[in-house]
Amino acid sequence: MKPLILVTNDDGVHSEGILALFEAMRTLGEVYIVAPDRERSAVSHALTLHRPLKAELLRDCIYAVNGTPTDCVALAINKILPRRPQIVASGINRGANLGDDVTYSGTVSAAIEGTILNTPSFAISLVGDSPFLFESAVPYAVKTAAYILENSLPYDTLLNVNVPNITPKEIRGIKLTRLGKRIYDNAIKEVISPRGDTHYWIGGGQHFHEHGEGMDMQAIKEGYVSITPIHLDMTNYEALEYLGRTWDLNDGQGLKGN
Amino acid sequence: MKPLILVTNDDGVHSEGILALFEAMRTLGEVYIVAPDRERSAVSHALTLHRPLKAELLRDCIYAVNGTPTDCVALAINKILPRRPQIVASGINRGANLGDDVTYSGTVSAAIEGTILNTPSFAISLVGDSPFLFESAVPYAVKTAAYILENSLPYDTLLNVNVPNITPKEIRGIKLTRLGKRIYDNAIKEVISPRGDTHYWIGGGQHFHEHGEGMDMQAIKEGYVSITPIHLDMTNYEALEYLGRTWDLNDGQGLKGN
Repeated sequence: MKPLILVTNDDGVHSEGILALFEAMRTLGEVYIVAPDRERSAVSHALTLHRPLKAELLRDCIYAVNGTPTDCVALAINKILPRRPQIVASGINRGANLGDDVTYSGTVSAAIEGTILNTPSFAISLVGDSPFLFESAVPYAVKTAAYILENSLPYDTLLNVNVPNITPKEIRGIKLTRLGKRIYDNAIKEVISPRGDTHYWIGGGQHFHEHGEGMDMQAIKEGYVSITPIHLDMTNYEALEYLGRTWDLNDGQGLKGN
Repeated sequence: MKPLILVTNDDGVHSEGILALFEAMRTLGEVYIVAPDRERSAVSHALTLHRPLKAELLRDCIYAVNGTPTDCVALAINKILPRRPQIVASGINRGANLGDDVTYSGTVSAAIEGTILNTPSFAISLVGDSPFLFESAVPYAVKTAAYILENSLPYDTLLNVNVPNITPKEIRGIKLTRLGKRIYDNAIKEVISPRGDTHYWIGGGQHFHEHGEGMDMQAIKEGYVSITPIHLDMTNYEALEYLGRTWDLNDGQGLKGN
């Protein structure tokens, strides 16, 4: 039986990027799209709990859901797909998902939900501005999925793939990277309403990312595809040890009841 | 000058939990609330980019924003507060934020945004069901904030505090913990609309959390307050090393252009 691959995104079921990923994954297996009915960027890892969701079959193997990317993955795996998928593939996103951005990203959150549901998952994004060269990302989506089908992924870990928005020939190869840091630049614009009161619009400024040896943004800058393994256990084990040494948690009384 | 403390949450500015936290923090410094105008649970780390936001002064030092918890922290630190805060405190949430739930949580995402903006931050939640005993959480909010004011926090790290919803006397002490795993139980209910078509409602089942030595849920079960240090760098460094050894990324050709 051919491997089953779930494709989703946060730009919506009608986006060019998801169709490119759909065709790419069809070279490897049986593919379903279950994706938001419209753009759901920056919704992060939201699950819709306050209302029921509708999954509309648009055409063979392509479903539109009136919810978030995370909703789509949960519905697909638990209700829509004929069997468990071997891979959740999210993208191809129009724009970067680098560094701390991954905590906001709808594209990455779909891969996080896949991982929580014990399915090896990856997110793939084009770093740059319109026009997006989806054909540049396609070979790296195929390569990543082929690796996962052969090797699976380490426990609790997804792959975050970013591809520079340059021509296929200009791409110099792949680098494995760590997440960089977003550097915040006070990107809030003040706007005055017709009634004269001040509103705030987030996103007025530019995003910066720290560059540094081994960081995702650095690889992109140099013309490489960046692949970062991300795990869901956000526990800071070093800090756990440090706090245990330095914080007298129970006021010198030890733990009550012990 | 008294330390400045920002209080926010995802249950909304009018919730009982945020007022309990406001009063608790006032024992330590000058306190502002900048919080969503209504409940914004499960919005995760969403930033509102598609429309301007309004910050309404309700009364002295208390602002309501028509956006997400993350929006509130970004607006507060960059636009509303008279100077940089020493702490972002998020809560007191009605309900647990344990294990993988932190990737969904509006309460925790406010503390994540505080951390990204270089402000030591913590989230505090009551684990249980209504009626919520906010007075049980208050001493642990104060204790956590006092520790942060004295010691700050490790780089890129926030504290996720969960308090069992039992009486103050029943709480046995504090334990430092690691994040557990959510165990998913297919919690999607099918509902039929008046027009006869099937919809899906997420949340129909129960959430389970893995219990185990040192895990957050285990501490709660035993009647302790759980404090988990969480860092934002989700890079899986072990997997990075493993993939580097096992994945012939560039098809034996090395990196192009090197």
